[in-house]
Amino acid sequence: MSAKPARRVKANPLRDLPLAKVYQTIEPGPVVLLATAEGGRANVMAMSWHMMVDFEPPLIACIVSEGDYSFAALCATRECVIAIPAVEIAETVVKIGNSSGRDIDKFAAFDLTKIKAKRVSAPLVGECFVNLECKVKDTTLVDKYGLFILEVVKAWQDPKQRHARTIHHHGYGRFVVDGERITLKSRMR
Amino acid sequence: MSAKPARRVKANPLRDLPLAKVYQTIEPGPVVLLATAEGGRANVMAMSWHMMVDFEPPLIACIVSEGDYSFAALCATRECVIAIPAVEIAETVVKIGNSSGRDIDKFAAFDLTKIKAKRVSAPLVGECFVNLECKVKDTTLVDKYGLFILEVVKAWQDPKQRHARTIHHHGYGRFVVDGERITLKSRMR
Repeated sequence: MSAKPARRVKANPLRDLPLAKVYQTIEPGPVVLLATAEGGRANVMAMSWHMMVDFEPPLIACIVSEGDYSFAALCATRECVIAIPAVEIAETVVKIGNSSGRDIDKFAAFDLTKIKAKRVSAPLVGECFVNLECKVKDTTLVDKYGLFILEVVKAWQDPKQRHARTIHHHGYGRFVVDGERITLKSRMR
Repeated sequence: MSAKPARRVKANPLRDLPLAKVYQTIEPGPVVLLATAEGGRANVMAMSWHMMVDFEPPLIACIVSEGDYSFAALCATRECVIAIPAVEIAETVVKIGNSSGRDIDKFAAFDLTKIKAKRVSAPLVGECFVNLECKVKDTTLVDKYGLFILEVVKAWQDPKQRHARTIHHHGYGRFVVDGERITLKSRMR
């Protein structure tokens, strides 16, 4: 596994995503990436166990277990970025899931673009169509279940990736890609 | 709103779903139904805020707020059923989400089939392709966030609804339906 040179941190080409709309990106249950940075070293993992907890400020719960290499960085820095990848980079997402930050620099190995975040030390992932800067808000259930509650403090969307189709994990590398869009008369927010 | 007579409780035509496979049904983030029963009165709500917490026994976290009519029944009985609907009944799902058990008997009003569960008092929803019988395991974060941790104690699948396509909520009645299936070489469970 030859380590490629890490790409430079890129200027931010992303656009504001209003915090009140964040839930619309997490609620559908896409596979996401979780980026952390500790001591100047960034890492990223793939994650499907997450849910919305509140609309605004947006609160997100997620499971990061002690066995995940990202666990220590998330506990120490109490910051992370949740980045949402579209189907076009599904193979990279799986590579991220198959490897550990213990062994490699995943940003370098998978040629991911780091973009400097505004409110947290973890980097935004340039290839993702949504990036959510998060602070750890509640660790009550971390010891028991690895359950973190995060507050989204700043959100970004990529104007070049409108109508991005996400992927949804069904176990063992089987994914379902977003299909048809339908609209029904709902009073639900 | 004229109340139709409630349909009889139907014999169970469903098949066992192994507990170890339950996560594959929740992880992709579908809209689900949450059925409860208190004092012989069943109710059902639509829910998108849920996630897996552990593989086996399967633990699921979900948000049911104090404003939801189901909240009281869930707290009192500490039991529920999570039922997963396919796109064919999306309109019914939205009607369930648009109404409250305070005002109507939703099982009767929307002609839903109650099937007697094995381990909990809440009914299975006959129209759904997966039904998960759950007991409330942890209420530590209920007061703060409405966050319940449920343990799935028995799971069912409908053999007549293989390859069911689920719906994923993007806010305000906009849904994305499951599309293409892809398989990538993953070491992830």
